[in-house]
Order: sequence, then C-alpha cells, then structure tokens
Amino acid sequence: MADPKSDLIPHDPEPRVGLPPGSVVFVGAERTHPVTFQVLGYGPGHVAETTETCVDEVLGSRDTTPVTWINVSGVHDASVIRSLGEHFHVHPLVQEDIAHTGQRPKLEAYDDLLYFVVNMVYVDDREDETLHAEQVSLLVGEQTLISFQEAPGDVFDPVRERIRTGRGHIRDRGPDYLAYALLDVIVDHYFVVLEAFGTRTEALEDVIVEEAPTDVEDDLHDLRRDLIFLRRMTWPMREVLSQLARLESPLWDEATRPYVRDTYDHVVQVLDLVEALRDTASGLHDLHMTAISTRMNEIMKVLTIIGTIFIPLTFIAGIYGMNFEHMPELGWPWAYPAVWGMMLVLAGGLLLYFRTRGWI
Amino acid sequence: MADPKSDLIPHDPEPRVGLPPGSVVFVGAERTHPVTFQVLGYGPGHVAETTETCVDEVLGSRDTTPVTWINVSGVHDASVIRSLGEHFHVHPLVQEDIAHTGQRPKLEAYDDLLYFVVNMVYVDDREDETLHAEQVSLLVGEQTLISFQEAPGDVFDPVRERIRTGRGHIRDRGPDYLAYALLDVIVDHYFVVLEAFGTRTEALEDVIVEEAPTDVEDDLHDLRRDLIFLRRMTWPMREVLSQLARLESPLWDEATRPYVRDTYDHVVQVLDLVEALRDTASGLHDLHMTAISTRMNEIMKVLTIIGTIFIPLTFIAGIYGMNFEHMPELGWPWAYPAVWGMMLVLAGGLLLYFRTRGWI
Amino acid sequence: MADPKSDLIPHDPEPRVGLPPGSVVFVGAERTHPVTFQVLGYGPGHVAETTETCVDEVLGSRDTTPVTWINVSGVHDASVIRSLGEHFHVHPLVQEDIAHTGQRPKLEAYDDLLYFVVNMVYVDDREDETLHAEQVSLLVGEQTLISFQEAPGDVFDPVRERIRTGRGHIRDRGPDYLAYALLDVIVDHYFVVLEAFGTRTEALEDVIVEEAPTDVEDDLHDLRRDLIFLRRMTWPMREVLSQLARLESPLWDEATRPYVRDTYDHVVQVLDLVEALRDTASGLHDLHMTAISTRMNEIMKVLTIIGTIFIPLTFIAGIYGMNFEHMPELGWPWAYPAVWGMMLVLAGGLLLYFRTRGWI
Amino acid sequence: MADPKSDLIPHDPEPRVGLPPGSVVFVGAERTHPVTFQVLGYGPGHVAETTETCVDEVLGSRDTTPVTWINVSGVHDASVIRSLGEHFHVHPLVQEDIAHTGQRPKLEAYDDLLYFVVNMVYVDDREDETLHAEQVSLLVGEQTLISFQEAPGDVFDPVRERIRTGRGHIRDRGPDYLAYALLDVIVDHYFVVLEAFGTRTEALEDVIVEEAPTDVEDDLHDLRRDLIFLRRMTWPMREVLSQLARLESPLWDEATRPYVRDTYDHVVQVLDLVEALRDTASGLHDLHMTAISTRMNEIMKVLTIIGTIFIPLTFIAGIYGMNFEHMPELGWPWAYPAVWGMMLVLAGGLLLYFRTRGWI
Amino acid sequence: MADPKSDLIPHDPEPRVGLPPGSVVFVGAERTHPVTFQVLGYGPGHVAETTETCVDEVLGSRDTTPVTWINVSGVHDASVIRSLGEHFHVHPLVQEDIAHTGQRPKLEAYDDLLYFVVNMVYVDDREDETLHAEQVSLLVGEQTLISFQEAPGDVFDPVRERIRTGRGHIRDRGPDYLAYALLDVIVDHYFVVLEAFGTRTEALEDVIVEEAPTDVEDDLHDLRRDLIFLRRMTWPMREVLSQLARLESPLWDEATRPYVRDTYDHVVQVLDLVEALRDTASGLHDLHMTAISTRMNEIMKVLTIIGTIFIPLTFIAGIYGMNFEHMPELGWPWAYPAVWGMMLVLAGGLLLYFRTRGWI
Repeated sequence: MADPKSDLIPHDPEPRVGLPPGSVVFVGAERTHPVTFQVLGYGPGHVAETTETCVDEVLGSRDTTPVTWINVSGVHDASVIRSLGEHFHVHPLVQEDIAHTGQRPKLEAYDDLLYFVVNMVYVDDREDETLHAEQVSLLVGEQTLISFQEAPGDVFDPVRERIRTGRGHIRDRGPDYLAYALLDVIVDHYFVVLEAFGTRTEALEDVIVEEAPTDVEDDLHDLRRDLIFLRRMTWPMREVLSQLARLESPLWDEATRPYVRDTYDHVVQVLDLVEALRDTASGLHDLHMTAISTRMNEIMKVLTIIGTIFIPLTFIAGIYGMNFEHMPELGWPWAYPAVWGMMLVLAGGLLLYFRTRGWI
Repeated sequence: MADPKSDLIPHDPEPRVGLPPGSVVFVGAERTHPVTFQVLGYGPGHVAETTETCVDEVLGSRDTTPVTWINVSGVHDASVIRSLGEHFHVHPLVQEDIAHTGQRPKLEAYDDLLYFVVNMVYVDDREDETLHAEQVSLLVGEQTLISFQEAPGDVFDPVRERIRTGRGHIRDRGPDYLAYALLDVIVDHYFVVLEAFGTRTEALEDVIVEEAPTDVEDDLHDLRRDLIFLRRMTWPMREVLSQLARLESPLWDEATRPYVRDTYDHVVQVLDLVEALRDTASGLHDLHMTAISTRMNEIMKVLTIIGTIFIPLTFIAGIYGMNFEHMPELGWPWAYPAVWGMMLVLAGGLLLYFRTRGWI
Repeated sequence: MADPKSDLIPHDPEPRVGLPPGSVVFVGAERTHPVTFQVLGYGPGHVAETTETCVDEVLGSRDTTPVTWINVSGVHDASVIRSLGEHFHVHPLVQEDIAHTGQRPKLEAYDDLLYFVVNMVYVDDREDETLHAEQVSLLVGEQTLISFQEAPGDVFDPVRERIRTGRGHIRDRGPDYLAYALLDVIVDHYFVVLEAFGTRTEALEDVIVEEAPTDVEDDLHDLRRDLIFLRRMTWPMREVLSQLARLESPLWDEATRPYVRDTYDHVVQVLDLVEALRDTASGLHDLHMTAISTRMNEIMKVLTIIGTIFIPLTFIAGIYGMNFEHMPELGWPWAYPAVWGMMLVLAGGLLLYFRTRGWI
Repeated sequence: MADPKSDLIPHDPEPRVGLPPGSVVFVGAERTHPVTFQVLGYGPGHVAETTETCVDEVLGSRDTTPVTWINVSGVHDASVIRSLGEHFHVHPLVQEDIAHTGQRPKLEAYDDLLYFVVNMVYVDDREDETLHAEQVSLLVGEQTLISFQEAPGDVFDPVRERIRTGRGHIRDRGPDYLAYALLDVIVDHYFVVLEAFGTRTEALEDVIVEEAPTDVEDDLHDLRRDLIFLRRMTWPMREVLSQLARLESPLWDEATRPYVRDTYDHVVQVLDLVEALRDTASGLHDLHMTAISTRMNEIMKVLTIIGTIFIPLTFIAGIYGMNFEHMPELGWPWAYPAVWGMMLVLAGGLLLYFRTRGWI
Repeated sequence: MADPKSDLIPHDPEPRVGLPPGSVVFVGAERTHPVTFQVLGYGPGHVAETTETCVDEVLGSRDTTPVTWINVSGVHDASVIRSLGEHFHVHPLVQEDIAHTGQRPKLEAYDDLLYFVVNMVYVDDREDETLHAEQVSLLVGEQTLISFQEAPGDVFDPVRERIRTGRGHIRDRGPDYLAYALLDVIVDHYFVVLEAFGTRTEALEDVIVEEAPTDVEDDLHDLRRDLIFLRRMTWPMREVLSQLARLESPLWDEATRPYVRDTYDHVVQVLDLVEALRDTASGLHDLHMTAISTRMNEIMKVLTIIGTIFIPLTFIAGIYGMNFEHMPELGWPWAYPAVWGMMLVLAGGLLLYFRTRGWI
C-alpha cells in the first residue's frame, strides 16, 4: 500500500542493493498485523471454507477439491512466502517479487505455474480521499490459486460470494477462470477510482470556470474538451474499421470490402481533422494569452504615462503650497508663470521621452 | 447517450463490480421509454416493414426474406436483450456489452455472428449544441442484422429509405452490406459534428483575433495554422508515395520505381521542413511572450521609479502645507532650504538604491 | 480548391449523408466554369494535341498513340465523370472520390487501373498570399492517363512542354512515367510554398526579435533554432548509417561493418545529446520566464509598499491643508505633533502588515 | 565520472577527430591515480583474492580457478588496456571504447567475448549531492570477467562479499552469472539515486505548495500527480492482459480467453479515460492561468481608471493651493466654479476615452 | 553550405520545377571558385598524390593503384559532374542529387556503385560562430571513391594524412573502408559542434540563473536537468538488457536469462519512475508560475484598494486647500464635518464595492 506521493520514491530499496537474487525481503511500509490465510476449496458441487493463521495448517489441510484458492493477507513475513514457495516449487525470484512490493505488473509463465503481479488501486474514504495502490500477486497452478494481498481487505468478497452461492460458471471452471475473475474485480476497481477522479475534475472545473470572468476562454475550454471527447470516440472506430477491412469471415462478403475501406478512409480523415482542430484550438489559447498580456501592457502604459507626468507636477505644486514664512519665491512677481513654464517643459520632456520609447 | 462532461465519469460502474461476467445490466442514464422494434425484411424484389413493441412478436413474425433487419430502440430492458440473445445464440459477454453502454468501439468475430460496437456522435440543437454520443451495437448473422440504439432516432432513415425505394445495390446484397451502410451513415455523422466544431473554432478565432491588438501574434497564428494545414496535406502524400514505391502492378513499370523513390525523398524533405518550421514558429511565440513580459517590466519600472521618488516627496510638501497654528518649523528662517535639502537627499538615496538593483 | 481556414470545416458533407455509395456528387466550393479537356497523344516519334469541351468528342477522338493523356479541368460536372468512368470501367466509389473533393491522398490499385488522389498546394499571389489546396486525381491505365484538376491551371505546363519538345525520356515511356512526372511537379510545388513559409517565418522573426529588449531570450531562441537544424541534419544520418550497417553488397566488405556500427553509435549519441540539449534549452526558457515574472513581482512590491504607505499619509496632510474657517483641530497646540504621531503609527502598522505577508 | 552539466558537453572529443579507429586514447576528466587490479579467482569450493598494481603480474598470476574476475580501477592508462586487450584478443574498437568514457551503453557479442558498456550513476554526498555517472565496461570470456571502472570504488563490494562467503549460487556459476550480478548491483544503484530525486521533488513540492496562496491550483496539481500515478499503474496492466490474451499454456484454458479479452478492453478503456482526464486537467490549468491573468487585468483597469482621472485633478487642485502672492486667478470671482467646471470636463473626457477603449 | 536560417527556406527550388528528372542543375548559394580535384592513389605499399583543375586530366591520369580517391571540391559546375558521371556510369538522378545541394542524407545501392549523401556540419569561427551545413556526396565503386564537397576545405586532411603515413589499416583496405573513414570524420565533427552548443547552453544558463532571484525555480531547473541526464543514461541500459535477455551465445548460459529479465524489469521501472518524476517536475513548474501570478494579483490588489480609496479623497482635500478668495463653502460652519462625512461615505462605498468583487 502506498499513497502516490510516497510512491514516487521507491520504498527504501537500499537494503536490497547487493543481496543475492531471490532473497525474500519485504520492502514497503512497515506492517505488523499477523498474516492470515483464507482457504476456499470448491468444485461443481461443493464449497469448503476455512481461515487459518499458520502456514503449516494451510499446507496440511489442503483437501482434494478440484480448485483450492489460498488467499494470503500480508506479504511482510518472509518465512510464510518461503514455506509456500518451497511447497509449490516457486522460483526464488518470484518469491522475492511477491515480498518486494512496488513491482511493475507483469506475467511470467513457468512450466507448472503462472505468476502475475498486478496493482490494485483504491481511494480510501477514511483518509481524505487519498489514492492507494496495493500489489496483488497471483500464482496459478494446476489445481491451486494462491493470491497475495498486502493487507486484509474485502476486495475479493464479490468473487467469494459468487463461489459460495454458485452463481455464474465459476464453480465449474479451473483456477485460470478464478484468476480471471480476480483480475476482473481488480480492473473494475479502477473505474471506481476513475469516477472519483472525474468528480474531482468536475469540481475543479466548476471552481475555475466560475472565477474566469471571460466567456471566450470558457468556450475555448469547452471546445478543447469536446475535441478530446471526440478523439476518444473516433480512435477505436478506426481500429474497428481497420480490422473489418482485413476480416476473413464467411459472414463478410469479399465484395463489401472496398466499401469498408472507403468508410475507413473517412474515419482517418475525421481523425486528421480532429487533430488539426486541436492544434488550432491550442494555438487560439496561445493567441488569447498574448492578447491578454498585450492588453495589460496597454492598460499599464496609460497609467504609467499619466502617473509619470502628473506625480512630479503635483509635487511641484505641493512645494509652493507649503506655508513656510521664509520662501522668497512666493513673493516674486513672475514666479507663478515661471512655475507653469517649468511644469510645461517637464511634461513636454516626458511626452517626448515616451514617444522615443514608442509608447505613444 | 452521454454528454461529454458526464462521460468523463464512467457511468456508475460500481453496481457491476463483482457481478459474474455476462450479467446483462443496463448501465447508463436512466431511460423509461418503451423499447420498440422496427423489423424490415427485404430481398431483391420485395420489402416488408413492421414495427413491434414486444420481443416475442418480433421473433415470431420473422419471415423468410433473404435479409431481415431488426432495429431495437432502447437497451435498458435486460429481458429484451436476453430473449434476442438466446434466440440468436449471442455470447453472454456480448449481451452484457450491448446493455452496458459506454463501451469502447470494437469488432468481435464469432463463428455464426459478427458483433460491432460503435459510437454515434451528434450535436443536439435543442439542447444548446451539446455533443452527444450514443452506443450503437450491430449483430450480423447469416440472414439477419440486429441493430441496437440507446434511444429512438432517425439516423438510419436514409438507409431505410434506400431499401424501400431500392436505390443503389442495397437490396441485392446481404446483411454485411447493410452493416456497412449503417456504419457509413454513422461515420458521415462525424463530419456533421466536425462542421459544427469548425464553426465554433472559427467563431472563437474571430473573437480572439479581434481582441488581439497586435498584428505580430496574429500573423504568427496564421502561420502556425497554415503549417498545420500543410502538414495535414503532406502526411498522406508520404503514404501514397511510399506505397507507390513498393507497388507490384503490371501497370507500373519497374524502371519508374527509382524516380518515385526520388519524389518520395522530396516529400519526406517537405515534412522535415514543415516540422522544423512548426518548431521555429512555436519558438517565436515563446520569444514574443517573453518580449511582452519584458516590455511590461520596463513600463512598470518607469512607473515605480517615478512613483517611489515623488510620492514621499509630495507627502513632505503636504506636511508643510498644513494649516496648524502651532507648527514651529514654519517660522524658522532656514526651514525651506532644509526641506529642499532633505528632499534631494531622499531622492538621491532612492536613485542610488535603484541603481544597486540594476533598475536604472 | 480550399483555403486552409474553410478547409477546417469539411465542405458541407451533409448532402452526402445517407446517399448510396458511388453517388457522383460534386462537393466543394461552387464552380460554374465549363469543363475542358486537353488531350495529348504521344509516342517516341510524334505528338498530337487537341482541346475539347465535350466529353463525347474526347472519347470519340481517342487515337491510337502509345500514350494518351486526357487532362480534365473541372470535377463539378457529374455527368462528365460518369461518362469517362463508364468508358474506362472505373469503380463507382472511385468516380465518387474524384467528384468529392477534399479526399485524403491515397493510392488504390485495381486490376486494370491505378487510382491516385493527391493534393496540390499553391500560394495565390493575387489573393493576399492565401494558401490553397486543390485535389488532383490520376487514373493510370494501360495506354491512358486521365488527370482531373478542380480548376484550369498551368501547373502541368512544364510536363506538357517536355512532351512537346521531346526533352528527357518522357516520350519513350508509358503512362506510369507520365504519372510520375505529374506527381513530381506537384511535389515540387510544395517547395515553392515552403519557400513562402520560410519567408513569412523570417519576417516574423525579424519583427519579434527587434521588439525583444533582451539579448538572453534572443540567444536562447537562436540556440533552439540551431538545435532544430542540427536534429534535422542528424536524423537522416542515423538512417543512412543504420542501412549501411545492414547493407549486403559486393562493394561493401563484411569486415568494415563493425566500424560502421561504431560510427552509427556515435550518431545515436549525437542525437541523444541534441535531444538533451533541446530539453535543457526549453527548461531555460521556463526558468527565464519565471525570472521575469519574479522580477515583476519585486518591482510591483516596491511600488505597492511605497504607495500604500505614503498615499494615506499624504491624504492626512491634505486634510489639514484645507482652508475651512471652522477647523477646530488647527488651533489646538498639540495637534501638529499628534498628527505626526498618528502618521508614524499608521506607517509602522503598514510596515508590520507587509512584514507578516513576507513582502519585506 | 561526469557531473550532468559538464556531460552535456562531450568530453573534448576533438583530439579524436581523424585518429585511426582503434586508437586507445583516454578521453574524460583527467585522472592521475595509479591503476589497480583486484583479481578474484573462485570456484564452487574455494576463493583466492589478490590486489596487483602492475598488469604483467595480473596476467602472470592468472590461476586456473573456474572463474577469474579482474577488476581494473582506472581506464586512463592506455598501455594497461592495450596489454589486457592483446592478451584476451579484444577487438581494437572495443579497447578504444573502454578508454573513451562517455559511451552510450551497449552490448557487443564477439565469438569468444561479450562486451558491455553500462553507466553507473550515484549521488556524491560529499559534493553537495551532485549526480555522477561513471562508465563501467565488462568483458565476459569463457572463464574470465574483466570489469573496468573509471575510479576505485566500493560499488562491487556486496558482490565480492557474496563470493567470499559463498552466499547464494554465485560460486557455482560461470562468468555470465557474475556479469549479471554486477549489472544488477549497478541497476540497484539507480533506485538509490531515484530516491534522492524523489526527496528533492518532494522538498520542492513542499516549498512551492506553501507559497501558492490558492487552493485551486493546489488541488489541480494533486489531481495531475494522481493521474500520473494512475497511468503508471495502468500501463503495465495493459501489457500483462495483452500477454495473457495471447498466452499458450496448459495452465490457461482456451475458453477463458474471451473473458480475458473483455478485461483487456476494460483496461484500455481505463487508459483512454486517464489520458482524457489528463488532457482535461491540463486544459483546466490553462483556463486557470487565463483566469488569473484576466483578473489581474480587471484589477489594473480599476486602478488605472481611478488613477488616470484623479491624479490630474489633484494636480489642478494643487496648483491653486500654491501660496504665490501674484496669482491673479485666485481673486477672480468665478474662478472657483470655473475650476470645478474644468475638472468635470476633464473627468468626463477621460471616462469617454475609457468607454471607447472598452474598459468601462 | 547554408546557415541554418536560410536553410529553412529551400534553396530557390523553383528553377527545378518541371525540369526533366536527371537534369544536373546546381541549386544553392552561388559559388564561383574553380572546381579542383585532389587525386590520391594508394595501395599497401605506395601512395601517389596529384591535384588537378581539369576533369579530363583526372580521368586520363587515373593510374592503376588498388584504390583511387578523387576528391571534388565544388559541385556548381554541372559539366564536371556530367563528365565524371558518364565515365563512371552514374545514374542521372544521382548526378542530379550531387549538384542539387540540400538533399536529405541517404544511401542508394546500385549494382556497381554505392551512393551516399551526408551532411557535414561545422561552426565557422570567423563568422560569429554561425552553424554551417555542407552536403558531402560519396560514390563508392570497385576501386574508386569519389567524394564531392561544396567548397574546398580541410576536413578530410586527417584521413589523407593517415593514408600518406600509412598509420592504421587504411592502406590495406578497399574504398569501402575509405568511405567509412570519411563518414567517421564527418560524424566526429558533429561532436565538435555539440561542444560549441554545450558551451552556449551553459553560458545562457549562467546568465539566466544569475538573474533568477529565487532559489526554488533554480532548484527545479537543476532537478529537471538531472532527470534529463538520468533518462539519457537509462534508456540505452534498457536496450542493452533487452538484447541480453534475448542473446544467443555460448558465453551466456540459458539459466542466467531469468535473472537478466529481472534486472531488465528493474530498469523499466526506473524509466517509469523517471518519466513520472519529469511529469511531476513539469507540474511543479506550472504550480510555481501560478503561485507567482497569484502573488502578483495579491500585491496589485493591495495597491489598487489603497490607491482607489485614497486618491479621490486626497483630491477632495486638495480642492479645499485651494486659495481662491471666493469659495463660499470655506466659510460655512458645518463644512468641515460635512467634507469628512462625504469622505467616509465615499471610502465606505468603495470598500463595499471591493467586497462585492471579492477582493477583500
């Protein structure tokens, strides 16, 4: 289990540096809960379910049902993984990968065992909607499936329920179908997370759109979002039609093929246009940003010109508004016109300066 | 049917999590309209058309025309899909996909059935030009085509009309040609949507260009748009010439091939240049934005220097312009020159400060 | 013919929605000029050239020269395309594509006919340098080449001239070589357009560089442009050396191969470095923009601090500079020091406020 | 050894230009430490370890253990590489690559020798956490492995320790397993570096998030980071399911395949959605930036309007607040109302000007 | 020879439009220097070197050394290329490509001739460090190599020197090895150019970093640059390990393969993390920019609020500070409190306005 932030940092891998490969060392957030085992044996007609806390009992109690599913909650106890690994002839590197959480999902096929690592993601409501990822390892054997979770959880409950009640085909099939069912449940959880993400995106959209005091950028945003949507709709259409144009099927007449190719060309043209429109819309955003910045420049230029001219003049007027008793200029007869002249010269000089800078 | 916004959130998929695969559960915006069936049987010589509201009548009334097209308007009634599915031996996963709208378009070929999911997009004029997507599923059998729409609509009317009037080859061909005709109509609707998008883009372009008080960025935008256009023209040329250089045809002499390869090289060179020009134009935008920001800095610097110097000086002048009776400084003989001195020192100090900051 | 802007919107495709495939309907800007036919028959020894305005005469007058090139200027008359199409056994979908301008370039090989669509681009000097695209369709048969232009134009004149004068090999070769020659002329026109684009880019560059009052960003722009250039030089080198490392030729000794692989490694290293430098340069632009924005913040902070402190103080000084007869404060003996005290408290409070905000 | 900055510049390659290929010239930061040789011979039962400083002793002392590992610390002495190279029949180009540090990692297979170049990265704590890269070359022969490091270091110590103590299988295996063990140690060091990078990223994140006075952008950043995380989780899931859908294994029933394909479709859909959400989030950032800029424009407009109107008016008031003895206007009876009138006209004119500019 | 700027515009290709293919027309910057020929015949034992200025002498003097290298300096004289071309049976299109500089690098294999075009880049120190590209064409025959440079230059001197002195294997090998040696010299020149680019990048980095008054963005830039470096180190590692996992060699035991695959997984994980960190760092830059802009908004808001409130108030105070003799208000007993009241109402109204706008 890792929140996305701390996952950016690999979980203190240093202790592993230089260990012989196949060393089973748990790497991840520290966990102390005891490891539990849920053992579920089933076949077309019957189900047997026990929960153990000791690996030896699990291996001892293995009955002879067509399928036995051992769910191990906790991978922080290296001895458990080693015991199970030895019993089921699991390659040491696989044992290491089970314990070393934070693996990249992968599939490895051995002669008598398939090994999957997948990531389960979920949003923890209790902890301020943080996103969590948990590594789930599956070992698929002839008659056995062993699943490893990092912590006890109820994510596999729906599958368990289906086995108990015998709904669907699950009891009639082997461990591979069970593996599929578990993968499917995990992938379905991604949609739950995505829904939370969609909600977050929309909430942000509402806040941001509200604060945007201009319709233009709003409309532009809508356009871009709609184009994203349209592309998402069209891309797989292209795949479908490309497949169809190459389809060999008794149901699909050879003579219809050129027509399909024609429709395929249309879809490709749609995609070309969507991409061109997206590029254009992105260019429009750039243009709009430049327009806003340029307008700001214009506004500031007006303020600066007015301020730069009148602030010094007001200062001069302020000087001769002072009430000192000994200000000889105040008594001179030509002082007032002289001050006016000085002010005009100053203002004219500033205007000239602005003109040379190209501001007016 | 989904508007793009709500589609960013998968349609409440939670109820599905953990259901056995093949469970037919409608997932999507709630619908209550009754499901209707338009049955159209036709062959080279004749056409028979009925509209049913009950699935049993549809299955019962199936006549023996070479092609029977059953159009189902509404996928929210699981029993309907199940009845049809059982009658035509449709795989449970396919039944699930028909009901579970929001699928990615795909093509699946079974032994006696082809299954397509495609997205139909359209702009609803009544609802403020929002973009809608609707999942259309097609089942193509030996003599039957079943199409599923989410809601009744008139999108297939032109095809129906062509069948009724016998225009084109449609009556002489099988269900595969009918499937093509429906796909073609759906893809053609993308162009209608694109036209609406083009109009929106142009309207925004007009507004934004108008507000841009500078020609430079305008010209730059034109240049970039033209380069997008040129690339869109050139890319497929490359494909054509590449195909031609490898073409095996009695109509195309081996000796002409090196010449074609030469022209192909030219087109690749054109593409290289277009990409380089696009990168350069994008760099020019960056340069322009920096120029605008730097200019703003210059403008603000002038205002700040003038303001920072004269606002405090004006304050000082204001102080001695107050009319209090008891202001001893006013009577001092050297007060006026002292104030001037103080002001000059202050102004000089600020100028020095600006120089150390590199502003002047 | 379409200018890039209007081409973003597909040319009113709605009339086509639902038409049977193969319907020959002209889609594009409306044209009314009469369709003309330039017929050029030639062989190693002779040339015969006529211009017709009626399709029947064209088909009737077809003489028995080894190659006959029929150039059709105008695709807006459906009957013309249909007549030619029937005479030369052209597939209805191809006939439709010839009339339906705005196709994506493509090559389709039929048993007795090759069909190309290509785009010709050109800049119209008369219309303010707008970019135009015109669809050119070529039908290559055993002894015939039919070319379709949207409007009469002189783009093929150089080829015609070469046929007339017998320069080069063109008269000794078949219609495939003629098709190549036409394609080559069309691709060469892309370079003319690119030249116009290069000029536009440079003109913009001059304007923008001139207005940039800082050398840094200028140099950065130069660096990025040079890196674009260097990448454009290096990419194809990589292809050449990769080909060479796999070359099977009596002229190329097996023993030289490891050396070539070594040079290939060097070129790949050059590309890695160029990409890394481009990323770094782009990061430098970001850094520079942030620096400019931060500097602006600094400038504005100074102005705001000075303004916020002194504007209210000046207001207070202004109050007591008013000349009302009844202002009791003016006569109080401690009023002047009290006002000073008030001002100092106010200024101190503001300074404290700025400190808590982290501005000073 | 190179810090990333200086590595952007290839290490003075000029001296190499034009040298015959296979010239062993050390290229890199200058080094003067003496080259040392750690020779470790081992087999299932025994270990022999010596450290030499002279290449002849190394070649002379080579005993007959199943595996001999010669670790050369220093590649700046061309004669050493040449001696070893001649003794073990190393291709001159390989000798050159060993000495010419800064190679791109590569693998070359010769008949009796495998040659690897890999980069070892590490963060040097002593030097302000700068990132270093060092070229490590490995030569794998029948019974010998020669490793070349640029400088003496303890990176291979864990492997040496494992050989000494006989932990794991390493002593039972050949030089290929030893090569693997060294590669593994080098790759594990990347994780250590990544951890340092994660810490740097988080530290920056803390600083930047703290200074952001708005929650919106913060939330947006969180959303984008979570989407990066989700994509990183989902991409490899896609690979796993795609592999699984094509898996041929007795453990995996053919009949389960369509179900897996269904889950695969779901994962692809998840990826589509994640990408669409990422694009949308990036669009939201653009929208937010525009909103901020537009708001700034609004703020500045208010300041500019108020300032532009009242600063000149205050100047006029300041004029008639001056205390000159000879200001004839002051005595005129209508002067006061005239000044008011002038002010109103000025203010009205400015308001009109702002209206024409669209500011109010 | 072309500087990158003018190269964005193809070198006036118009004269070529419509010429028959294979027309040898020089296209490029005009050159007038006479074409010179350096002929170097060599074999294991001897070397003969002459310099000619007339193509006939070159062809006449061709002696019977095992290898003859003819270096042609200048491709602007079409007759020279034609003479050589005819003598050595060079395809007309190849002759055209030699003269038509600005080609994309390519390799063409004919039966008795290999033809390369490559670009040589170099920085001209005399001309303000502009980047130049020159097309070099190589024709490799059985016993002859002809190289074409655009202008005389000393780039091939090191190779010539090696031939003269007999260093390395060059004299013992055929023209293919000579071709390799020339390619190698050309590629090595790319590193010289890259070094100049690295220096330019660093110089800019120094300037920009210096002007950035904030550490945060600086650190962020360092982080991003280090990540670019790390990715550049890791990518080729991935290739090496992928090759190794598929390696078939007697030196590489089958049993070691799973371990290598494990290490390969680690490297892929490193790359995933590096990419995620790069995306995060880029998001941090966005966040930082927004923070700066938002802070600017805050600063401006404070200035605007203070300015907007006090500038009008100061104006009012200024009004009643005027010294007109006839200002009736000055004598009214309640005038002073009335002005205060008016001012408070005005300030209160503005505060209310700012509150409704959400500024305070």
